[in-house]
Amino acid sequence: MSATAEKFRSISPAEFFYRNKEIAGFANPARALYQAVRELVENALDATDAHGILPNIEVSIERDSVKQYVYRISVKDNGIGIPEKYIPEAFGKVLFSSKYVLRQTRGLFGLGAKMVILYGQMTVGEPAEIISAAINSRRIYSYRIMIDVRENKPIIVSKGVWPNNTGWHGTMVKVAIEGDWSRAKQKILDYIKRTAIVTPYANIVFKTPDGEIYTYLRVTETIPPPPRETKPHPHGVDLELIKTMISETKAQRLIDFISEEFQGVGNVIAERFLTKYGFDPSKDPKTLSKEELELLVKALKEFNEFRKPRADHLSPIGAELIKIGLNSILKPEFVDAVTRKPVVYEGHSIIVEVGIAYGGSIQPSEEVVLLRYANKIPLLYDEKSDVAWKVVSENIDWSYYGIVFPAPLAILVHICGTKIPYKGVGKESIAEVPVIEKEIEEGVRQVARSLKLYLARKQKEEEMMRKAVTIIKYVPEVARNLAVLSKANPVRIDEKELEMKIFELVKHKYGEYLNNISSPYDIVIGIE
Amino acid sequence: MSATAEKFRSISPAEFFYRNKEIAGFANPARALYQAVRELVENALDATDAHGILPNIEVSIERDSVKQYVYRISVKDNGIGIPEKYIPEAFGKVLFSSKYVLRQTRGLFGLGAKMVILYGQMTVGEPAEIISAAINSRRIYSYRIMIDVRENKPIIVSKGVWPNNTGWHGTMVKVAIEGDWSRAKQKILDYIKRTAIVTPYANIVFKTPDGEIYTYLRVTETIPPPPRETKPHPHGVDLELIKTMISETKAQRLIDFISEEFQGVGNVIAERFLTKYGFDPSKDPKTLSKEELELLVKALKEFNEFRKPRADHLSPIGAELIKIGLNSILKPEFVDAVTRKPVVYEGHSIIVEVGIAYGGSIQPSEEVVLLRYANKIPLLYDEKSDVAWKVVSENIDWSYYGIVFPAPLAILVHICGTKIPYKGVGKESIAEVPVIEKEIEEGVRQVARSLKLYLARKQKEEEMMRKAVTIIKYVPEVARNLAVLSKANPVRIDEKELEMKIFELVKHKYGEYLNNISSPYDIVIGIE
Repeated sequence: MSATAEKFRSISPAEFFYRNKEIAGFANPARALYQAVRELVENALDATDAHGILPNIEVSIERDSVKQYVYRISVKDNGIGIPEKYIPEAFGKVLFSSKYVLRQTRGLFGLGAKMVILYGQMTVGEPAEIISAAINSRRIYSYRIMIDVRENKPIIVSKGVWPNNTGWHGTMVKVAIEGDWSRAKQKILDYIKRTAIVTPYANIVFKTPDGEIYTYLRVTETIPPPPRETKPHPHGVDLELIKTMISETKAQRLIDFISEEFQGVGNVIAERFLTKYGFDPSKDPKTLSKEELELLVKALKEFNEFRKPRADHLSPIGAELIKIGLNSILKPEFVDAVTRKPVVYEGHSIIVEVGIAYGGSIQPSEEVVLLRYANKIPLLYDEKSDVAWKVVSENIDWSYYGIVFPAPLAILVHICGTKIPYKGVGKESIAEVPVIEKEIEEGVRQVARSLKLYLARKQKEEEMMRKAVTIIKYVPEVARNLAVLSKANPVRIDEKELEMKIFELVKHKYGEYLNNISSPYDIVIGIE
Repeated sequence: MSATAEKFRSISPAEFFYRNKEIAGFANPARALYQAVRELVENALDATDAHGILPNIEVSIERDSVKQYVYRISVKDNGIGIPEKYIPEAFGKVLFSSKYVLRQTRGLFGLGAKMVILYGQMTVGEPAEIISAAINSRRIYSYRIMIDVRENKPIIVSKGVWPNNTGWHGTMVKVAIEGDWSRAKQKILDYIKRTAIVTPYANIVFKTPDGEIYTYLRVTETIPPPPRETKPHPHGVDLELIKTMISETKAQRLIDFISEEFQGVGNVIAERFLTKYGFDPSKDPKTLSKEELELLVKALKEFNEFRKPRADHLSPIGAELIKIGLNSILKPEFVDAVTRKPVVYEGHSIIVEVGIAYGGSIQPSEEVVLLRYANKIPLLYDEKSDVAWKVVSENIDWSYYGIVFPAPLAILVHICGTKIPYKGVGKESIAEVPVIEKEIEEGVRQVARSLKLYLARKQKEEEMMRKAVTIIKYVPEVARNLAVLSKANPVRIDEKELEMKIFELVKHKYGEYLNNISSPYDIVIGIE
């Protein structure tokens, strides 16, 4: 046997992601170009709408005139900017971020910009340029930085400071990477378009390497309430989390710890909870034994008198906006949407929203057309490994809802929360977490029932319509015959008058199905 | 606007993966149980066959008698063991590993065991137990450890030392995690079985929580040559890698750097290379300017006189073993396999192997049955997002190879190399890397052509067979008639003798298609 000693060593987070860039979505030049645009646009939106600022986002991709594989990406926003002291690490240190709090943001891993810069560094080797001014900053700062991969720290190549005379705030990031525009183009255009659909309050301008300019202008000044930072809900704790919380809390009594550090727990409930499970409310949480901690976690998870998780810190799209979005892209004959009540996944509130669109301009296909969003970002890759795909393709028996494939059916699923269980740091598909799968399924069933009712009503309408039409068709003839008969009578009946009277009678009975018909001749002419 | 200042902070790699355990395959209790078994079994195999040791692996999962959601997993191997000084960090520090070298191993991220322990710590809270003795160690060490998530370092709960009287070496890991056996069972059994298929030289015993025991006994003592550590190939460098290599090399002249630090480069080639691109061979590599480095990387990538990447440090399964494996599981009528020549992906040699199986016991289905392996580990989840799926379902027009779906067709794809571009650290699907996609496609085309030839030959055989059968069917009648005619002649012909003579004549012409037919009556009886 070749019993060579193994070489053990430690690597930095920067080196880990440098070695494994595929897991962050940088598998090839086309995918990398798409991923780079995404990461920077998502940071730009997080810096604006998440702080109540109407976003103005400018995206530009330029091809190097000599090195044709080199693309210079620039993304500029009017967001809150980055305080100067944080700029180098925010862009030059992997796992350093403002996203490690309980708040609904597009970015969650704190990796995106750093991955773009790392990839640029590997493939082109130019430093990234960051220009930023925080709100009310009197200066605008510019940094050119690279990442020291071994040490996981920023290398500041150069730095500049200018007076901020116009009161500008925001951030602009420029980075050169190896890309493949022709293969990435369609996905990037789709991405920008589908982003614009759920941010109708944003101006987004996109300049392509071909010199085309795509502009999505703001259609409303109304910005949804920004997400807010929150505390964990007791139903989602784990042993590790509770230990961290106890080590960090200032509360010296268990009752204060429970009521101050969690959402959904007041003093009264905290006391009832502790009594029920036999904890001393005045005990110092830091003195809990291992067994007590285990019991506490179990109890926090099962006690059902805590208030339901709040959703007011989250920022869903909303059923109305989803319906508008679906109508505008898909132009279906039927649309509906639902925003579900919040649920808890590991201490994080999550809201699932589901939209449905049917018929109209949707082409019938063998499978459901699935539009996936998470925290308002469109997910375009890896659909088949997403939990939402499992729901629509396996869990739901569509024939129960009157759908037989091929069918013109689209489902939109949006998941928002302070944590999204992505399967990978490339943020393309969502893992099979039971509580989320259940929510998506319930949501899909809800809108599918609504579609079923619509289809049933439509079918009934069509039947009644046929019936009414059959009757009305003969109104002129009946009227004529009656009029002829009436000639012999003392009171002469006008044929046209009679026609209208009979028509009114029929219309009274079937009126709801005959909105567009104002005379029996509408049908007679229409039919013959 | 709510211009609250963002809170920036740094998190440790342990905290990153604790917060994002889904990306490592720990999305729910069922998946986590499967993932935990995988990670520990893969470590056990890496500690044995990769060092020329015939593996004896014992896997056991027990359900806790009180807490029914708690499972105790134990995996024991007879591998090289872990030197005592490394035990705590190898299991208690994320991104500390022996896998960060250029060698084909099942584990590549150096994350698996740590993720299992982290997940156990979150869900159950017991320390993991590690018992290990390195080869020739006089002592056996046992550690009970947990992970300090904030600091990313091991917490040693207890430690024991015993004399190693029997000369045992190997490692045993025991860890308690929340699981869901009923939902994970099938995948875990599949995983163990499909692992056994490609490691016929291993003993694997698996004890389930239901008390069943699955045993895969060694069927051969022949172990494939173990993979060996290697150097990067010049065609796969990037700017970042070359900078690291230069900072670490002892070579003081460019020519020594190029010829010593890369595979496939001797002194002569190194000199020719440097001359061609105008580099001074005696220049100190540490003094290269940014522009020179860029040129060097470009030149290393494009120079086509370097030796092809070597494959002798890799350990493929081999076409024969793949055919045996496919025959034994699928029992097809046709099987073939190919081991492709090595290619380079980012400085890493990669070998793609493709097997094909058709007909026999394979049930016809609407899609190709795809069996995926990477570095000898079976990949069971996320098939549809794997590059191999793209190849077999999009790139290949199967009708060209005479296949019309539904068809009884299975394709096995094995990728081995010092780097596998997994899409996620859960190691379930492989990213769309162009060079790998091309290799898989070429491999599939190669075995598909072999199937096409087989099918064409089979069709021709069937036609010829039909033709021969049609003729032979009438041999007795013809013989009889000839015999009757001959009665009038001077030389009387025996009917049976004539029959055999005519038959022999026909068989001479169509013989290769009539192997099993020894008399015309075989057909006459068979047909009528």
